[in-house]
Amino acid sequence: MNERIKIITQKMKDDNIDIAFFNNPMVINFLTGYKSEPHERILAVLLFKNHAPLLFTPALEYEDAKKVTKEFEVFSYHDTENPWDIIKRKIHEINVPEKTWAVEKDFLTVSRKEALENSFPDSHIQYDFSHFLEKLRLQKTSDEIAIMKEAGFWADEAIKIGASILKTGITELEVVAQIEYELKKRGINEMSFDTMVLFGSNAASPHGTPGTTPLKENQFVLFDLGVMYKGYASDITRTLFFGSTPTDKQEKIYHLVLQAHNDAMEKATLNMSAETLDGIARDIISREGYGKYFNHRLGHGLGQSVHEFPSIMQGNTMPLLKNMCFSIEPGIYIQDDIGVRIEDCGFLDENGFHSFTSFPTNINAYREFISE
Amino acid sequence: MNERIKIITQKMKDDNIDIAFFNNPMVINFLTGYKSEPHERILAVLLFKNHAPLLFTPALEYEDAKKVTKEFEVFSYHDTENPWDIIKRKIHEINVPEKTWAVEKDFLTVSRKEALENSFPDSHIQYDFSHFLEKLRLQKTSDEIAIMKEAGFWADEAIKIGASILKTGITELEVVAQIEYELKKRGINEMSFDTMVLFGSNAASPHGTPGTTPLKENQFVLFDLGVMYKGYASDITRTLFFGSTPTDKQEKIYHLVLQAHNDAMEKATLNMSAETLDGIARDIISREGYGKYFNHRLGHGLGQSVHEFPSIMQGNTMPLLKNMCFSIEPGIYIQDDIGVRIEDCGFLDENGFHSFTSFPTNINAYREFISE
Repeated sequence: MNERIKIITQKMKDDNIDIAFFNNPMVINFLTGYKSEPHERILAVLLFKNHAPLLFTPALEYEDAKKVTKEFEVFSYHDTENPWDIIKRKIHEINVPEKTWAVEKDFLTVSRKEALENSFPDSHIQYDFSHFLEKLRLQKTSDEIAIMKEAGFWADEAIKIGASILKTGITELEVVAQIEYELKKRGINEMSFDTMVLFGSNAASPHGTPGTTPLKENQFVLFDLGVMYKGYASDITRTLFFGSTPTDKQEKIYHLVLQAHNDAMEKATLNMSAETLDGIARDIISREGYGKYFNHRLGHGLGQSVHEFPSIMQGNTMPLLKNMCFSIEPGIYIQDDIGVRIEDCGFLDENGFHSFTSFPTNINAYREFISE
Repeated sequence: MNERIKIITQKMKDDNIDIAFFNNPMVINFLTGYKSEPHERILAVLLFKNHAPLLFTPALEYEDAKKVTKEFEVFSYHDTENPWDIIKRKIHEINVPEKTWAVEKDFLTVSRKEALENSFPDSHIQYDFSHFLEKLRLQKTSDEIAIMKEAGFWADEAIKIGASILKTGITELEVVAQIEYELKKRGINEMSFDTMVLFGSNAASPHGTPGTTPLKENQFVLFDLGVMYKGYASDITRTLFFGSTPTDKQEKIYHLVLQAHNDAMEKATLNMSAETLDGIARDIISREGYGKYFNHRLGHGLGQSVHEFPSIMQGNTMPLLKNMCFSIEPGIYIQDDIGVRIEDCGFLDENGFHSFTSFPTNINAYREFISE
């Protein structure tokens, strides 16, 4: 049985949990190797103290799931069947205790919990494995880190492609299209989130959407993007100056963000708290009076998605441990004026923070990649 | 106040609900016009019987949300703040009754429900508006249908682009890349789900993933794709025969699926039950002995997403009403051998089913679009 299932099964024994039910596709992928987004259908892993694990899938995924998962017995339901009835029948069939259940409350909807409770009225479905599962996913294995480095390589490549095609008049959407097209041709089929390319003041919204704005001389171009590679995400932000002469303000803000970014990267160490690391970058920006324009946390965890733990922010006293993977991404956003963010993701160990990405951060970096 | 808020507020009065709390981004977009995916952060609409509606957002979305929503007062929290505390403070500040709450149990997680219960220990947070909200979104307005026709136009365009570049040796991923690239250049930035292009036996899995398989002569090419347009989704599937001479089996299966598709399109009428419509297509396929290879429902609802109600399947006795929008998509999948699916989405009215898409369905359709 794989190591992760063993750890969970041991915890179930320790805590006297009869059944663990997880329907988070990311957790399912983490435990089984099977990756799928079932939308409104039910996809779930069921674990037991003394019985082989089960994978429950919609009928149309049965064959795909069986190919991938060797240790799991796969069982399925058709669209016309009640999935909860099928689960109930299966559990009675394998004849295991069903008194206490653990679920992932951060993912399970209220409706689905109630459906389980209706099917198993004598069971106690209250134990929450959310944090336990998060912790299990928090410190990556060396295999996971090796994959995440490759995912980072492709994020760097994506920025190179974007930098190489910048020219006056090109639109944000055209740059996005070209980046994704070139990546797809090279076998990278999925981005880890919607690719962001924003020109000038459009970058002043940290969650902006690319549009048909044409690029002008002497503007910043903010790229925030990442790819999915073998089930793991990468994520990078670069703000490249397009033109020859940045204004004093552009220079100042860029270098302030860069300094915050570099300092946090250099000073991150094992056992430092998440909020201490956030503070290192935030202090640099606040000291110069731009604190209120850095209106988000310093970073987020990274792994099978771009939104997991640890959260690098004020109030999070969690110590940063070996092989935790997260972003360092300070930014300054002045509404309708300017937006600069610089981000790298990496992992932490006794030697410090190791970035998965390495696209240069000097303000004129795009020049090195212009195709001529 | 907009019509949708009025209907919900009326229901709250009828059912004696003090506060409605919805954190489903699609519902929020439907009610406010503000479209955002907050990931692990909290984005929520709060409605009251006798107070103006509120929109609660992460701080970094505050400005964007305010620009879009006029009728909603926007309030926010920073990453370092506890969002539930901010919500509690606001509700006490506006001084409204807080005894009974309605939530969307199909979307709300158990953790978030428990967080609300901890913040409002004297409240009863049990009333479920899931089905009510679904119903509200089920019958589209003429404005929504007009947008969905445009979304359908772009889905047809996408298939045309794909058909035009088919040639021996091209890979599935290259076709996907080219389609999305051309759409992005024309301003269509978001697909409604991962674009599917599958060659030959790869299409035998209804949820297959495009890869580096090269196209060969005399294979089927299955396209399943759609775009997001002004917040609404389109969805189309075509299975084009690439080559000159289909085998008897290819011909037979294709025409069987096409007949099921056409019959269901022609016979769909107001007040027919969803399962009756499913049965019309399923009987045609089953009669020829292929029933077990049509292993999914006939269709799904369509609107702000490609996965909503009504579900066109056995067991669903819901009558199909005016301006409901859904897919008709029979398919036959024989493992490691062949996969054919033909899908159109449309709306229903007294004159029958009106498809949003119209790419031709003759087996040789791709020929009309080859670029030469």
